[in-house]
Parts: sequence; structure tokens; C-alpha cells
Amino acid sequence: MFDIENIKDPSFLKDLSIDELEVLSKEIRDFMVDKVSKTGGHLSGSLGVTDIVIAMHKFFTNGEKFIFDVGHQCYAHKILTGRAKDFDTLRQRGGITGFPLRSESEYDSWDVAHASTSLAALSGYVLSGKKAVAVIGDGALTGGESIEALEYIATLKTNAIIILNDNSFSISKNVGMFTKLLDKLRSTKSYVKLSDKNRKNYKLKSLKNKVKSIFYKPNILDDAGFKYYGPIDGHNYKELFKYFKYASIQNRPVIIHCITKKGKGYLPAENDTIGAWHCVPKFDKETGEFYKDSLDQIAFSGALSEYLSKYYDKHNDLKVIMPAMTYPSNMVSLKEHMGESFIDTGITEPFAASFAASLAINNVKVCLPIYSSFMQRAYDQLHQDIAMQDAPVVIVSDKSGIVPGNGKTHQGIFDISYLLTIPNMAIVAPKDMDETYRLLDYAFSYNKPICIHIPIPKTKYIPNLEIERPLLDISWTKENNLPNPKAYLITYSASVNYIKEDAKTNNIEVINARFIRPMDEVMLNEVLTSNKPVYVYEDAPKETSFGNSILIYANEHNIKSNIKLIGFPLDFLDLGTIEEIRKDYSVDKDSVIKMINKDNETR
Amino acid sequence: MFDIENIKDPSFLKDLSIDELEVLSKEIRDFMVDKVSKTGGHLSGSLGVTDIVIAMHKFFTNGEKFIFDVGHQCYAHKILTGRAKDFDTLRQRGGITGFPLRSESEYDSWDVAHASTSLAALSGYVLSGKKAVAVIGDGALTGGESIEALEYIATLKTNAIIILNDNSFSISKNVGMFTKLLDKLRSTKSYVKLSDKNRKNYKLKSLKNKVKSIFYKPNILDDAGFKYYGPIDGHNYKELFKYFKYASIQNRPVIIHCITKKGKGYLPAENDTIGAWHCVPKFDKETGEFYKDSLDQIAFSGALSEYLSKYYDKHNDLKVIMPAMTYPSNMVSLKEHMGESFIDTGITEPFAASFAASLAINNVKVCLPIYSSFMQRAYDQLHQDIAMQDAPVVIVSDKSGIVPGNGKTHQGIFDISYLLTIPNMAIVAPKDMDETYRLLDYAFSYNKPICIHIPIPKTKYIPNLEIERPLLDISWTKENNLPNPKAYLITYSASVNYIKEDAKTNNIEVINARFIRPMDEVMLNEVLTSNKPVYVYEDAPKETSFGNSILIYANEHNIKSNIKLIGFPLDFLDLGTIEEIRKDYSVDKDSVIKMINKDNETR
Repeated sequence: MFDIENIKDPSFLKDLSIDELEVLSKEIRDFMVDKVSKTGGHLSGSLGVTDIVIAMHKFFTNGEKFIFDVGHQCYAHKILTGRAKDFDTLRQRGGITGFPLRSESEYDSWDVAHASTSLAALSGYVLSGKKAVAVIGDGALTGGESIEALEYIATLKTNAIIILNDNSFSISKNVGMFTKLLDKLRSTKSYVKLSDKNRKNYKLKSLKNKVKSIFYKPNILDDAGFKYYGPIDGHNYKELFKYFKYASIQNRPVIIHCITKKGKGYLPAENDTIGAWHCVPKFDKETGEFYKDSLDQIAFSGALSEYLSKYYDKHNDLKVIMPAMTYPSNMVSLKEHMGESFIDTGITEPFAASFAASLAINNVKVCLPIYSSFMQRAYDQLHQDIAMQDAPVVIVSDKSGIVPGNGKTHQGIFDISYLLTIPNMAIVAPKDMDETYRLLDYAFSYNKPICIHIPIPKTKYIPNLEIERPLLDISWTKENNLPNPKAYLITYSASVNYIKEDAKTNNIEVINARFIRPMDEVMLNEVLTSNKPVYVYEDAPKETSFGNSILIYANEHNIKSNIKLIGFPLDFLDLGTIEEIRKDYSVDKDSVIKMINKDNETR
Repeated sequence: MFDIENIKDPSFLKDLSIDELEVLSKEIRDFMVDKVSKTGGHLSGSLGVTDIVIAMHKFFTNGEKFIFDVGHQCYAHKILTGRAKDFDTLRQRGGITGFPLRSESEYDSWDVAHASTSLAALSGYVLSGKKAVAVIGDGALTGGESIEALEYIATLKTNAIIILNDNSFSISKNVGMFTKLLDKLRSTKSYVKLSDKNRKNYKLKSLKNKVKSIFYKPNILDDAGFKYYGPIDGHNYKELFKYFKYASIQNRPVIIHCITKKGKGYLPAENDTIGAWHCVPKFDKETGEFYKDSLDQIAFSGALSEYLSKYYDKHNDLKVIMPAMTYPSNMVSLKEHMGESFIDTGITEPFAASFAASLAINNVKVCLPIYSSFMQRAYDQLHQDIAMQDAPVVIVSDKSGIVPGNGKTHQGIFDISYLLTIPNMAIVAPKDMDETYRLLDYAFSYNKPICIHIPIPKTKYIPNLEIERPLLDISWTKENNLPNPKAYLITYSASVNYIKEDAKTNNIEVINARFIRPMDEVMLNEVLTSNKPVYVYEDAPKETSFGNSILIYANEHNIKSNIKLIGFPLDFLDLGTIEEIRKDYSVDKDSVIKMINKDNETR
């Protein structure tokens, strides 16, 4: 009925009846499922808030700015604001991103993908005189920055609207204080959750005749300075419009607590209990099956997970502290295996890092896997609580290096740079599954703060690897063993296998610098004093990353070798595949080898 | 009555009656006031919790570990654990620190000075099977990491005790949500605050006959999964012991909400309304007057404050977003002057940075002053919200460089290192008051993210400086204008005036590199190609800071000059004065000049 693909802007909504809106909801959801099945993307969250977002665009037409926390639930918003036609290009080079981006649309107001900043953004919009509405999930609300923002917002004497999208299910399952508090709100307000059997006729109990009790029974949020409405059915347009109206006339901050179903409208996503449909690869929309890579490849995080499972079997004092990324870090079965020893703390990187430090100083073996980009959240806790206290946490920087598909907000290229600014922090980087195992062996026996950098590209699966074999020393390796190479290329992580064969063909020795800090100074010295040109090649900003350590070493030791750093400029990298992004900066292997060859012709 | 100085450990407390404990409280407070009047230190917080800490050491004798949030309230704890005799050395080279430090005493369990980590620490202690009690103020509770931790702690089925030290007054005055919630708790529990007139006979209304109502009227914290007791009078031993007992027998997390008077027992500190007695310089304990430096010197933050006051008079859209350090950053009168445009957000660095970003993208002029060390808390928000969104926030890194008196937790030497890892972030560093004004002029007209690095040493006061004079371009300056120097020494910030005269005497040209990024490449190139040795000298880790940028530049431009980096190793620096710390690493001006002279004799 609706020509979704050609929606120009949300103005057409003003003429639609509620029945028509419901049709539109369904068609937008179907559109999303269809498109995302071909591109991959963040599906569940967007399905869950479709009705809320449509209602927002119909109701709030006085220049209100919409701020989406994390932003992975923004697809309906993108569709309604003229970007449906671009969904074939979602998450691809030159296409639209999966997150709000101000440079992409005047309707986007906050560039985001890290959680829990929407309420701070709302604060700034409101204080600068704008009207604004923030949409935040119950998962992102648990991030400390959200609560810091509520602290401020509670003081406002102006309208500021927060829509709490409560699906009791963030990226990982929530537990703890907020869940209990939200449960309390739900139960006191007679919200009835339907059994799974009734999903087909899923409809929340209407609360319209409970309005009085909502007005007259103020709760904790009222005490805190907010006008609280809810919980209401986030899939019921009448409810939404009623409370949007109440909310919009308040001269104070308002929280509208909406109950939604994550994945709504697509059964495989609705049935998801582990977070598999939060961000999906391409899939068969009829069967709901993900298209999978071949089984002879494994993600580095999969290898990590397998290692930790074996390690736990030997050392059952192991704890894994995981801030919310259990599914995308391939740890669902590890979590099951480890039971209470695997603690998913929710979206709480700072807490997770301090908590891990406290366990470690109490002689508990602890592993802290965090996305490279999200680890930035815990920079101070890594610095003060882990490194300064010499707490032997085994930190894992997951999804490090170039991150395809998510754009500039998720790039994992910065971790080596910022970890190198932290004293007393060792850094290692395996090139494959075997080295992942060996460097984890090293890390667990190191007994000081250490971070393992693991990238996104998959690596060859090696079955039946044993853990705790003879240790790798602090060592680099010559990968090509060339008798008389024309140049040395020092690299680490996935780049080793990416470039080593081509380098060999061109008589370039590749040094696998798996110990980023401390370095293998014997081999470094040998290479630097070889009178051959030395290239340092990394998926990182060349101005601030590992190459620096090499320059510092050479300068300190007064070695005047010919060193060239190859990497990115210090910048936020755009959307694209890993190879597209490398080519943008001429750091793909062909360009690099061509450059080395050219350098050494003219020499 | 008590020989405070010679207390060896807390075991003597077991024999004391409540009357005797009250005498002890008074004597410990007097001891603190006396000692701190001669050394300076964190006074108010320690005075406020003295009774609580004594009660803890008397009651919890089964190996419970005590964790103090921030740690600046730990003096009574240090006194009771055998360190009273060391108070003459407080905050001095070789002496005791003002914060808990595990290497200083087996009674200390968490090295700390950044706020809001105690509950994460408690989580780790409890999960590893230890008994532990955390003491946290209402100010630190507002930091997001605390709430993230409560989220986890609420799930525990074991005893974990949190003492909430509520003095309604963190480092800066609290406002907002938590204040309202705590007010609610206070009022529902019949807590009666005494008027100022009654301070002398200050005694909180006893709540003993309200126990039932406490047990039977569960509140928000009970809903959230805690056993909540309170509020109780944190200066009443009977109350404290009663609730410690209730708390200690619970198999669940417990919050004991204690009302205390910050500064209790010393009138000038009790009367403090602006935070002046939080951390004090030396003072006359009879009159309560601080010993002041001469008036012809001004703190860089004082110069900043004066500038902002003038800037606000010209541009009243200026907002200052200040996470809690209003008093120690010399902004009490600025706050008064700016009224609602000066927003003290409490201890909330992440929120403050995102909030500032949101204001800035809405074309509001915004200044964000944060301590260099605490800014680490907002690393991700600087990266994603300010830099990535190109939000023109004028960030101020206050108390940067070497920080005397506070030890390794407060060192401001890391800011240039970590700011350099953030793309799209300019960094400038004034050497004196005039440059502070000029670089603020530059920053406010720059219209992109920029950080001003200002150090602790005071600078000459220049009265009646105008703002918005002709701009400084991106420029470095030769400070000594020597016709034929034997070497160049590139430095910035307070180090310029610290070393320039001595350098001149030794025919060394000092380059004031006030633009850290972007650099003055014309002058840098001139210096690097001069065939003279180039020294880069900074109060920062030489492996990761500004010197790196010089090496990178030289390497990129294939300039083979003789560059030597002078600074600290990448490490946590110990307690001491600025000069003592420099001497530890032979980077005081005498050592530096001697080294340069020696280098250039042998050349």
C-alpha cells in the first residue's frame, strides 16, 4: 500500500489514520527485513521501535530533534526521512551508515554508536533552546553516563522528552538493579507480559483506564524530578500519541516508559534469546537462517572463546568479565559453559574494567574482553585501576584494526595508540589461531597487566589445539626467512598473513612483531642495523601507533636507519570493506609492495 | 587522653566504651587539624567520616577490607592503622600519601583517587570471597561508574556492605536527581536537619524508635535489590554499631545511609559553603586562615577564570561545563558571575564532555575545564562526541604536567600523550598569563575541537589584560633570540620560563612550542635543518608525548638531525614537589643544561 522506497520525508504521516499507520508499520518492518537480509545490519532494535519512531515523526512536527541512543535502532527513522531508496547500500562504501550521521541528513542530530550519550546530547539540545526527544533503550540506560545525565536533566525547568524503550533485552540480557526497578514499575502499573504462545495476537493490555493511577501514584522517577508516564505499549499508536501529547505540554523533563518487543514483526528475531538478531549477517528471510562462512575459518574471538573454555576446565577460578558483547564476541556457549563465572555486566565498560582489576588484585584469574572501540570508555580505569595497581588482568581488545560496515564510530584502529600511552601495560597481537592460543598462554602466566589485540578478519581453524604449551618468549619472527631480503616490513596481527606471501615474492622479509610492548629488541636491533630499509606496516594511525615505538627506539639508540611508517593518517575512517578502506589510503598490500619496490629501485 | 601519635593498630578499640570513642573522635579530629594545618591536605572529608571510620575499625574485625571511594577521606583510617606518626610527612617526598595505597599498609586495599570506583572494587573483593565494606560519598555516588556497579551488586546473594556517607556536599555542591532522591529518603525517614544556629550542640535526631518503619517501609533501594538502612546519624556510635550489626548478618548487599557533617569538629571547615576546606593549603588553625602566596602570582586556572569572566561579559552565550572542580579550579567567583551559564555537573566527566559537545554543535560557545588526570575519564567522549563530531568545545586540561602532593593518582603528565591519539584535536599550551589569554582568544575563534594545557605552577599576574586582541597565529617563538646558539631546546607550558634564563646563559635557544598540534612547521623545519642538536623537553613521558610528533615529522621529511627527547619514562610518578620529581629523573633544569653542555663538549 505504501511506496516505502520513495518516501521523501515524514510529512505524509500527518494525513494517516491509526489503521493506516499500522499498515505502514508492517510494511516498513517488512522492508527492513527484506533489505537487511541482503546487506546485514542491526535488525532487532529497529524492528522493535518502528511504531515509536513513526509516531514520533507524525506527532513531533515543530522542529523537534530526535536523538537515538547508540543509534542502531534508527532504520525506521532513516526510511521516513528520505533514505529508504538507499537501503541497498546500507553499511557499504558510499552508502548509508547503520547509525545516525549529521552529514547524511538534516534529520540526524547526533553522530553516535557508543552507548549512553543520548541524554547528554539531549541536555545540550535543550539547554541551547532546541526542542528534542531522546530514545534510549533499557540497556543503554544502565551505562553510567546516562545516569550522570539524568542527574542534570532532573534540574531542568523546560520540556525535555526521554522515551525509554524497554524491551528487557539489551544487546545482551540485562540483569541487576535496573531490571528490578523496571520490573517494579511494570508490575505496579499492571503491565501484563504475554506468554510466547500468544505472540501472534500480541497486544499489550491497554492501560487507558489506569491513567489516573499513573497521575496520582508518583514513583521513584517523579521523586527524582521527572514527570513519568508509563509503562505504555510501545506498539500501540493511540497510547503513544496520548502520552506524547501529555509529555509535550510539560515544562519539565518527562520520561515515557514504553514496553516494546525487540525484533517485532519478524518471528526469528522475536524468538531470539541470545542477541543473535541484534546485528545480523546476510540471511535467508524465509527460513531465518544466517549465511555462514566456511567452517575452516574461525573468528579470533571464537578462538579466544574456545581457549577460555579449555582454560576454565583446568583453572576453575577463571572469571570472564564481559561488558554486553557476549553474542558478537562469540561467547554464548562459553557463557553457558562457565555459568556464574562468566559475568555479563551490561553496557558498563568503566565498571567492568575496575571490577576486573579488583578481582585480579585478589588473585583471581580474570579475562576482560572489550571491543577495541568501546574500550576507550574505560581508558581511565585501564590506567588507574589495572595498570597503576599492577592488576594482572588479561584484557582482550576485540574487533581491533579496521572495522568494516559500521563506519567511523566503530573503528578499532586506535587501541595500540591509546594503550601505548598507559604505563605498565603489555600489548600482544596474534596473527592466527595458534598464536592466539600461545599469546593467551603467555598472558595468563605473565601476572601483570596485558592486552591482546585481536582483529576482525577470520583465521584458519586449527582443531584440537592444546592450551598451556611451552611459552612463546618475548619474540618476533621472520615469516619469510629470506637469505638476503631487499627490505624489512614489520607488522603484526592479521596483516602478517595478509601480506606475507606477496612480500616473499618480492624478496621482502616480513617480521611478525607479535609483541608490541615489550618489543623483541634483539631482532629489532638486527633489523634496524641491517642497512636495509625498514617499513612498519599497521592497520592503525601511523602518527601515533606502533611505528612510534620503533622510531623512539632507533632515536634512543642513535640508529640512523631508513624507517618508513605505513598506516592511516590519524583520522576517523569512513564506511567500507577492510580492503576498500586500505585502498583509500594506499595501504592495501599491492600498493604497499609497489611502494617498497619503487623506493628500492631508485635507491 | 589518647596517645594518637603512637597508635599501632586498631586493636585497642575493642576495649573502648562509647564515651571513650567520642573522646577519641575528638582527639583524632584535633590531631588531623593540627597536622594538616602544617602540611596541607584533604581535611573536610576526613573530619566528616572520623566517627564512621572509628566505628568500622571497632566493629569489623573479621578481616573485612575497607575500600574508600576517592580515598580523600582516609586520614582517620591511616591514623588508626599505625600511620599517625607519619602525618608530619603527609603528601611529601618519602612520606605518606593522602590516599589509600596498598604498598603503604596491609590495611589499604585499593589504590585510588579518581572517584566512583569503590563499588567496583567492592564487587571484586566480594566475588573473590573476601569480606569488604565500601565507604562512598553522595558526590562519588553520582559518578556513572558507581551506578554501573550497583547494577551488578544488586544481583549478589552474599554480604556486601556499602556505607553511603551523605553530607549533601561533595567537592562541589550536588544538585539534581540524586540530591532529590536522597532528600526523599531523608524526609520519609524523619531525618531532621538542624539549623546553623544549633551547630554547637549539633546532634541528629535519634532514629532508634523508628527501626520498625525502616524494616517495614521498603524504599527504592530495597526494590533495587539492596537491604537499605537509614538514614542514620553518622556521628552517633550507638546508631552506627546497631546498623553495622544488622548489615553484617545479611546474605545480600546492604546500604547504610549515614548523614554526616563535612568538616565536623573544626568550625571553619563546618562553615564552608564553597568547598574551600576540601583540600587545603597550610593554614593558621586558630584563625582558620589559609597561608597565601604573594598577590603578584596567579594560578593558570585563575587566569582562565578571569578570562572567561570577561569573555562572558562580551558573549553571554558562553556556557562553562565544570565537572565538580569549581573551587580547586579557581572558579567560585566565575560561577557566581555567570549564574546559570556556569554548570557544575558534579563528578561526571563523561557526561560533561558529551554535554559540552552537544552544546557546541548547537553553536553555543562552551568551555570544559577538567583536571588533566580526571579528563582520562572522558577519553571516549573527547574522541567520539567532541572530536569525531567536530564540536568546537574549548577544553581546558587543568593541573596538567607534574602534580605535587597527591602522588601517582593525580599526575597530569599524560594529557598530551592521550590527546595526541585523538584525531581532529588541536592542543595548545601557554607559558604564562598573557599567553593564556591569547591562546583562549585563539581557541574561541578556532571553531574546532581544541584543548588548552595549563599547569600547576603559578605565573606572574598581569593586571587589566584585554581579551580578543590580534590573534596569535600557529606560531612558536624563540625565547632567547640568540645569534648562534649551540643547541635548540623545544619546550612548552611552565617549562619555558622555568628553563629559559639558564638556557640563555649557556647559549641554548629555547623554542616556546605553544602550538603542540598543529605545530609551527616553518620554525620546526628551520630548527631541525640547522645542523644543531635539538632537545625536546617536557613534563611528560618522553616515549609517548610531544617529542614523538617531532620524531615523526623529522622521519616523514627525511631529516636526519640529532634529536634527543627529555622527559619522564612512561611511568606513574611518586609523591614529591615538582622539583623533587624532576630531580628523580634528572630532568630538572640544572641536570638538563649540564647534559646539553656535556653532549656538546664531546661533539
